[in-house]
Amino acid sequence: MSSSTAGALERAAGHRQRFDAAFEKYFAELAGDLGGAQLGRFAPRCLDLLAQLSLRGGKRIRITLLHEAAGLVGADEAVGLAEAALSLELLHSHALILDDIMDDSPMRRGGPSTYHACRQDLPDNPQAALGLAMMTGDLAGFLALRVLVRADLPADRKQALLDVQLGVTTDTVIGQVLDLERDVNPTADEGMLETVCEYKTSRYTILAPMRLGLLAAGQDLVPYEESLHRYARLAGLGGQIRDDYLDLFGDPALTGKPRGADLRAGRHTYVTRDLLAATGGDEHATVRAALGNPHCTPQTIDRVRDIAHRRHVHTRLQATLDHYAHAAAAEAASWHRHWNEEAVALFEQLPLWNSRRTR
Amino acid sequence: MSSSTAGALERAAGHRQRFDAAFEKYFAELAGDLGGAQLGRFAPRCLDLLAQLSLRGGKRIRITLLHEAAGLVGADEAVGLAEAALSLELLHSHALILDDIMDDSPMRRGGPSTYHACRQDLPDNPQAALGLAMMTGDLAGFLALRVLVRADLPADRKQALLDVQLGVTTDTVIGQVLDLERDVNPTADEGMLETVCEYKTSRYTILAPMRLGLLAAGQDLVPYEESLHRYARLAGLGGQIRDDYLDLFGDPALTGKPRGADLRAGRHTYVTRDLLAATGGDEHATVRAALGNPHCTPQTIDRVRDIAHRRHVHTRLQATLDHYAHAAAAEAASWHRHWNEEAVALFEQLPLWNSRRTR
Repeated sequence: MSSSTAGALERAAGHRQRFDAAFEKYFAELAGDLGGAQLGRFAPRCLDLLAQLSLRGGKRIRITLLHEAAGLVGADEAVGLAEAALSLELLHSHALILDDIMDDSPMRRGGPSTYHACRQDLPDNPQAALGLAMMTGDLAGFLALRVLVRADLPADRKQALLDVQLGVTTDTVIGQVLDLERDVNPTADEGMLETVCEYKTSRYTILAPMRLGLLAAGQDLVPYEESLHRYARLAGLGGQIRDDYLDLFGDPALTGKPRGADLRAGRHTYVTRDLLAATGGDEHATVRAALGNPHCTPQTIDRVRDIAHRRHVHTRLQATLDHYAHAAAAEAASWHRHWNEEAVALFEQLPLWNSRRTR
Repeated sequence: MSSSTAGALERAAGHRQRFDAAFEKYFAELAGDLGGAQLGRFAPRCLDLLAQLSLRGGKRIRITLLHEAAGLVGADEAVGLAEAALSLELLHSHALILDDIMDDSPMRRGGPSTYHACRQDLPDNPQAALGLAMMTGDLAGFLALRVLVRADLPADRKQALLDVQLGVTTDTVIGQVLDLERDVNPTADEGMLETVCEYKTSRYTILAPMRLGLLAAGQDLVPYEESLHRYARLAGLGGQIRDDYLDLFGDPALTGKPRGADLRAGRHTYVTRDLLAATGGDEHATVRAALGNPHCTPQTIDRVRDIAHRRHVHTRLQATLDHYAHAAAAEAASWHRHWNEEAVALFEQLPLWNSRRTR
């Protein structure tokens, strides 16, 4: 491992730790902030479920991107960075809660999904459980904007950060709807997969945190929008394909989700698409039968995985992944001309790490 | 009808007509604003369903309150009023779409609910239909804030308007969760009904539009918060009780909803609470059996209504309504000292009209 890689990993761990402490503090104060005594019994439970999911973490990739993007211009005291971080992760919790309702997913981040936790709370009243989960997700989305609106920031800075996050909200809805449309159709073409990825991953996970970080550091974005967008697109495709890959080829102990969730949910991912294209006869029939069957057994998932290995789906996807990762790294390398070397090195490394990540 | 009443009604109709034209224009431009060509087939359908529900109107009571509140201080050119109006009605569409998912309601404003329209679109895929309806509601909530954030307004004005609307979002979530908690319990006490009404109706339907209108007109709210809050509480209780009343005693041709929806959904409203308290023996058993039974026939609803008439539920509720209406009008009358007479008169009239409204 090179010293710059070790340094970058250490910085990422530091961002994550500091953020987790701030996020915990945010939730400790939230109930009081929202009205305290009058909340009854269910509303504190919703806040608790939101805090649990949010604090169960995940990789906090957005937090690293945000801070390192501020670091690109070398600002030590970027204004609005702490609020942007909370906004990003609250909006992410919002998306996860709603995703898990739409997909009826039992697990998330190694624990019960918010929806299933509500169903366990109210086993005799699935409609009320749905309502509670929806309201918890709804609240998270509004809190993500509230944390920026209520922040003590200069008006122009606040406006710029809010503009980015509002763009994310509408992009994500469109991405989610495109995603549903893709899965309702019998097959999906490459263009559709790319468009969904653009809206659901690139803009949301990569571009938005980077834009927020640069804006907080006082950087004018206009000269860099195109390059940032290219980087986000390439790194986003890599991230999406790795997610799809891990769904079938990953280790559930590391991913926190049972294997084959995309297959069971009938999702047209990069994996399922390649599986359908690469198989014929009985193998194809096995894949088709598993796709969209929520009752599909672990044995069937294993059988599909064997087929995928036999048809080299995993090596082909890994090659595609590597291609996107190197293209993204090359785009980041062009930033050495104008931005801080250490931070640029992290953006070069990130897509390469992603292409081998296990969770 | 007095000349001031006639004038007030005419002004309310004018606000509604001008707003409806502006709202139609907003939706005509929305798809292009959100990305146009890349939206596929489902996303434009979601935008269309949102526009349909939003433009199907309803009473636009919030729009009247908003404009007349600006009129209290006599400002002809209140800054941000148009954007506040769009924000209010978009947030209302958001709440209606989510409500109808949680209650599984087929009808809204005389047409299909967004959720049921999605289910008709995708009869073989209820999970995707749920997803589309959720995303449509989600989008409406974010658009409600976006219309303020993206508005060309002075920063302090924008901040004040956004603060009000963000307060509404969290209050409404809490109100909705309290509402679910109330209905899951076998009975509800008066305090619980009042708290739900405070969060779901008073703050949302009355207080927020008034605060937005006054802020847009440049009024400092601090000296008036208590009186506005008292008015909102009283008028809100009147509004809520009238809604509950119309659910059982109203004319479906006017309300746009089948009679007894609250009863079928098992809601502890002012009506169902009084019904349970005022009946015994067989009558009580009939009410209990109907409460929360979604398959309850129109004949059963008629039987419950007969029981309610026999036990004078309707006269008792009307008396309570009248009490709140007069108390709200008295609160508004105190504003003559400092605010514009014509607008004050409308706020005096409004609770009295509400107590007799039929839709």
